[in-house]
Amino acid sequence: MNPTIQDVAKAAKVSIATVSRVLNNQPGFSEKTKARVLQAIEDLGYQPNAVARGLVNRNTGTIGVLFPSVSGLLSAEILFGIEARAHEEGYSVIVCNTAANPEKTLRYIQVLSEKRVDGLIFVSEEVTEDYYKAFERMGVPVVLILTQSYKYPLPYVKVDDAHAAYTATRHLIECGHEKVGMLSGNPEELLAGVGRIEGFKRALLEAGLSYSDSYVETSTSFTFEDGLANFPKLMNRHPDITAIFAASDEIAVGAVSAAYKLGISIPNDVSIIGYDNLKLAETSVPPLTTISQPFQRMGDKATEMVLEMKKIMM
Amino acid sequence: MNPTIQDVAKAAKVSIATVSRVLNNQPGFSEKTKARVLQAIEDLGYQPNAVARGLVNRNTGTIGVLFPSVSGLLSAEILFGIEARAHEEGYSVIVCNTAANPEKTLRYIQVLSEKRVDGLIFVSEEVTEDYYKAFERMGVPVVLILTQSYKYPLPYVKVDDAHAAYTATRHLIECGHEKVGMLSGNPEELLAGVGRIEGFKRALLEAGLSYSDSYVETSTSFTFEDGLANFPKLMNRHPDITAIFAASDEIAVGAVSAAYKLGISIPNDVSIIGYDNLKLAETSVPPLTTISQPFQRMGDKATEMVLEMKKIMM
Repeated sequence: MNPTIQDVAKAAKVSIATVSRVLNNQPGFSEKTKARVLQAIEDLGYQPNAVARGLVNRNTGTIGVLFPSVSGLLSAEILFGIEARAHEEGYSVIVCNTAANPEKTLRYIQVLSEKRVDGLIFVSEEVTEDYYKAFERMGVPVVLILTQSYKYPLPYVKVDDAHAAYTATRHLIECGHEKVGMLSGNPEELLAGVGRIEGFKRALLEAGLSYSDSYVETSTSFTFEDGLANFPKLMNRHPDITAIFAASDEIAVGAVSAAYKLGISIPNDVSIIGYDNLKLAETSVPPLTTISQPFQRMGDKATEMVLEMKKIMM
Repeated sequence: MNPTIQDVAKAAKVSIATVSRVLNNQPGFSEKTKARVLQAIEDLGYQPNAVARGLVNRNTGTIGVLFPSVSGLLSAEILFGIEARAHEEGYSVIVCNTAANPEKTLRYIQVLSEKRVDGLIFVSEEVTEDYYKAFERMGVPVVLILTQSYKYPLPYVKVDDAHAAYTATRHLIECGHEKVGMLSGNPEELLAGVGRIEGFKRALLEAGLSYSDSYVETSTSFTFEDGLANFPKLMNRHPDITAIFAASDEIAVGAVSAAYKLGISIPNDVSIIGYDNLKLAETSVPPLTTISQPFQRMGDKATEMVLEMKKIMM
């Protein structure tokens, strides 16, 4: 049988309220009393029960995070940002891999709701009506990362894609390139597809260069395999291209691999700039220039926002 | 005010026990009753409370995972293996990044203990006496991944390092290489250091080749930066080396980068074989041959073991 808080109070010869104050770091006891309580806790092997405390406080000290099956690298960096901040603030993180599957996502939201998490971070997926309704039913703060919702009033942490793509493309133009291609993600994807193509186009037009859709090779996702498959297609159509903006680091590294097989030298024949600044870019041969997305800081910031919102809602 | 199970029972005109049976998928009700209960739940917006249920059942449906700050890639793959299996079995995963810091690790174990997790997975760190005592106090199943303990009776999921290193080195020898070097991790590290050097040595001696410590360049960790810094040192000492066994994929990719800077062609001048089979190896230019560690399956297996042990202990 586990010892109870009563047992601790008895052994330390103090009241239950005093033990509780020591455990919760509230004022109202001397250093000597504190030492006695801590000694009693150790002697008895008392384990405070956060589950019971959560039921009383309506605060379980947990945050739920929903990831789709995006690149493992990207999720890992965001997660470590979230986890570090949460731990600092006394919270634990429950991680859920939704595989971008709507039914699985709804089931996860339900599980997190039943576990009474104190807040939710939702990563890189579109917020559907079903999801939003489920968020509303939970009644806890929800913050989005790498996504935003035009329809529902949810706060988000996200880089301005169009602006970042514009910056990357302008960098290539400033290096003297006039024939610039793009390996984009899915152009119909609202979250990461549209904005990056827009920024690319704007940079070209602003520099007085012509733009044609045929200089953008689209795909359905943002993976290494997309870069590997699409670089040859783009170069085949436009052999005069001397620089490429890739909509993700994975696409960029895939393109470098494809170029290697074709005997095209990077960056001597074709310059490639990536987007994400993952570890992948750093370890690439040759090292990849890339537009940085500060994933760890995004995780940190979203966690801060969830906890701030929680304070206001309580 | 949240509706209670009593409200649901009243609205559905059934007993509380029937609502509970429907919620917990136990037998004893008709399809018609089930439909009525589910309708009442939806009408009222009733949310079952897993926290309260956990207090009664002594089962919170959560598993805690302790990661040191190993490579983000490796942690991500293990985590997805754990999470997928846990979710399948109705469990959630709390993830903790200990940064390989003993005080932080003990604090995390304490937090997980207070949250009454049903089991613990401990990744890639040595189990100290303090950790083991804390595990014992918790009284829940603990399974190790990528580590094992000679001192304490804890089950583990881990590749046989010596055997895998032996296989990698033998592959190089079978390709005709006679001067083979190794970029090892930390040789004093019991978990991943010693075994890999042993396997390397055994393969050389068995093939009738000579072994000398000077053919092993050691470092303090297993990172890209180690490979980048140590490849030139090893090649400087032994310019006749034609093949290298790297003790991790990150070291291998770092070595490829260093070779690129030195104008040494991989694999024409020097062959490199890695160890881990991370995404990193696949996307490397040229693609890296590597000894596979099935990280996702290791996460899956460890989760299965924790849940099996829990059944026996209950």
